[in-house]
Amino acid sequence: MKGAAAEVCVVPGFLANGIHAGIKEKPQKDLSLIYSTEPAQAAAVFTTNAFKAAPVLLDMERIGSGRAQAILTNSGNANAATGAEGYRDARAMSDFLSRRLGIPDDLVLVASTGVIGHRLPVRKIDRAMGRLIQGLRPDGIAAAEEAILTTDRFPKIAARKGRIGDRPVTLCGIAKGAGMIEPRMATMLSYVMTDAAIEGAALDAVFRQAVAESFNAVSVDGCMSTNDTAIILANGRAGNPPIRRRSKSLAAFREMLCGVLSDLSRSMVRDGEGATKLIRITVEEARTAGEARKIAYAVANSSLFKTACFGQDPNWGRIIAAVGSAGIPLPVDAVAVYFEDIPVFRDGRGLSGSRRALSKIMEKADIGITIRLGTGSRSFCLHTSDLSYEYVKINAHYHT
Amino acid sequence: MKGAAAEVCVVPGFLANGIHAGIKEKPQKDLSLIYSTEPAQAAAVFTTNAFKAAPVLLDMERIGSGRAQAILTNSGNANAATGAEGYRDARAMSDFLSRRLGIPDDLVLVASTGVIGHRLPVRKIDRAMGRLIQGLRPDGIAAAEEAILTTDRFPKIAARKGRIGDRPVTLCGIAKGAGMIEPRMATMLSYVMTDAAIEGAALDAVFRQAVAESFNAVSVDGCMSTNDTAIILANGRAGNPPIRRRSKSLAAFREMLCGVLSDLSRSMVRDGEGATKLIRITVEEARTAGEARKIAYAVANSSLFKTACFGQDPNWGRIIAAVGSAGIPLPVDAVAVYFEDIPVFRDGRGLSGSRRALSKIMEKADIGITIRLGTGSRSFCLHTSDLSYEYVKINAHYHT
Repeated sequence: MKGAAAEVCVVPGFLANGIHAGIKEKPQKDLSLIYSTEPAQAAAVFTTNAFKAAPVLLDMERIGSGRAQAILTNSGNANAATGAEGYRDARAMSDFLSRRLGIPDDLVLVASTGVIGHRLPVRKIDRAMGRLIQGLRPDGIAAAEEAILTTDRFPKIAARKGRIGDRPVTLCGIAKGAGMIEPRMATMLSYVMTDAAIEGAALDAVFRQAVAESFNAVSVDGCMSTNDTAIILANGRAGNPPIRRRSKSLAAFREMLCGVLSDLSRSMVRDGEGATKLIRITVEEARTAGEARKIAYAVANSSLFKTACFGQDPNWGRIIAAVGSAGIPLPVDAVAVYFEDIPVFRDGRGLSGSRRALSKIMEKADIGITIRLGTGSRSFCLHTSDLSYEYVKINAHYHT
Repeated sequence: MKGAAAEVCVVPGFLANGIHAGIKEKPQKDLSLIYSTEPAQAAAVFTTNAFKAAPVLLDMERIGSGRAQAILTNSGNANAATGAEGYRDARAMSDFLSRRLGIPDDLVLVASTGVIGHRLPVRKIDRAMGRLIQGLRPDGIAAAEEAILTTDRFPKIAARKGRIGDRPVTLCGIAKGAGMIEPRMATMLSYVMTDAAIEGAALDAVFRQAVAESFNAVSVDGCMSTNDTAIILANGRAGNPPIRRRSKSLAAFREMLCGVLSDLSRSMVRDGEGATKLIRITVEEARTAGEARKIAYAVANSSLFKTACFGQDPNWGRIIAAVGSAGIPLPVDAVAVYFEDIPVFRDGRGLSGSRRALSKIMEKADIGITIRLGTGSRSFCLHTSDLSYEYVKINAHYHT
């Protein structure tokens, strides 16, 4: 999907653009627009942080209608912790767009990402609006993606094509997010566009489920953002018989959607701030899915484990220390830990040997770790990244 | 207490020593002994990690008697995740000592710290035992401390002298711990020696309370060790009327003990792996102490907050993002954040100005942050450190 992203990512009935409006000091794109030529069915998931950014508060009101036509995003400023003025700025941003596009204001969703606590430069956004709209084009999704990035090292675009009934259907998703990536809404921003026709309730349900299995199963640094937003727009242009909650076609749509979100969420982890590894942690044989999840996150968020991965050290001792700290009673002798298919801990003790094979595994960019608890049959899989000098560098010097 | 530590830390009736037994490859002390010339009243607190190291399992059995006479510790090897053999090794280590000292085996407590998952070199310990015992001396506590250190940059010794009744009483404590420092038993290892006479139940209660307020109120990296152990030995040599649970003298003893443990726990944070700052996080006006604690830890364990401190950036945005992610409902407009006495967030938004004053604060080695929640009257204070390149370096290269 990466090389051919610009070509693949044309979704019938969607136009997009991204430009430099001057919000970022560097001459990088910082204003992004996704526009459906007709109102689309919409669903969204937002951060559960108590301090929600102004655009999140505005979108939460608007998404209730289940309809939207445009997503306007700025990068370089999060419009978070900006009080009542920030909320007015979010409304103003929406207003600039709806007036110029001639669409109802409540069909516009807005998002912001960047530093927290600074007023949004709304005049710059206003001044750039004409240029942003004039540049809208069917193959503009790559530009729209570029304009939502902040510390990301590469763009994140994923697409799937398939058939619903006898009609070809396209899904294309974009995402940004490299730090403040954690459970309970792990994306910073992600938008999915599709021309499929799908009923509101079905779209909402399938989107929440797909987010739970993708963005909510990754962790970069255990930090939860104030701005996390994932939105899907389905404009129905494909002309398929509308997908309903009990339609057989829902399964096909879910598979395509999960594929897109899974690609995007792994790209986010791979692009985790300072990440040199993509680590897949699978917890098996747990009593409950919740316990499996809690243990997987305890390992993924252990700074000691993450630095060991950066150092290419197969340090299973730090894994079991993290597993044991999750507050879940465990029969220690039943727990087993594997790096790929090599057991490193079993029967309550570490296993010697196979150091060469372990070193080989740790040198790879993708590492799979499996933890078997021996207490049941539930499992959970999450993706995380390592903790490097570069993470410290990025976050010590990305100043307010 | 630091310069005069060796002089101050003579506690009547206690002898100590520390030597190099060859467990560490470098010629550093790695075997430590604290010995009370008569059986002492003893209390201890251990890690709550599900994977408890062998010496912890052994000590947990023995501490039930409330009596102990010696603490034998090796550094360089944690004897954790070593299964049934590890437990036998811990018993063997204890046995070498008790036979040579001619004391009952169950009056010996043992501890180990270092890498996880390697068999303890018990022969080396056995061979060094004669030398260790021969070198026991009243002013040997500094040597005993040196021998329990691993990645620590400096020794941690604290003492208090006072009076119980009309008798002079001494408390001296030592500690090690620089990584894997977190709540629910934050120390790696800490031992307190006192000549005070105190009843078992009173000692146990006052020690648990003092640990909760000191070691369990610090966090370096959010990681919980498999070996955490804190022990107090009170041999009664001061000849004071024994302190009981309802004695007036318990308050004086508690104050001395809290002073020692507070000094030690702050030293541990200051010596946190790679730490350049000691950060005091005070959460006030919380509904419950538990909520205050949860929010304080959410901030202390935020990698984004910790790297900002390292970068000397007064990034209150990352503080509120962490506060909001703790899963506790908050009236956003009532929350206020201060760096020392300078407000940086209030009424739902950041406050501009005073950047110079904030920069001054962030340059200091000790930083105080206060978070007022506006939901009640309970508070919690904890100490943490920043996250630096050095933390990554130490933990990426401290190989198994």
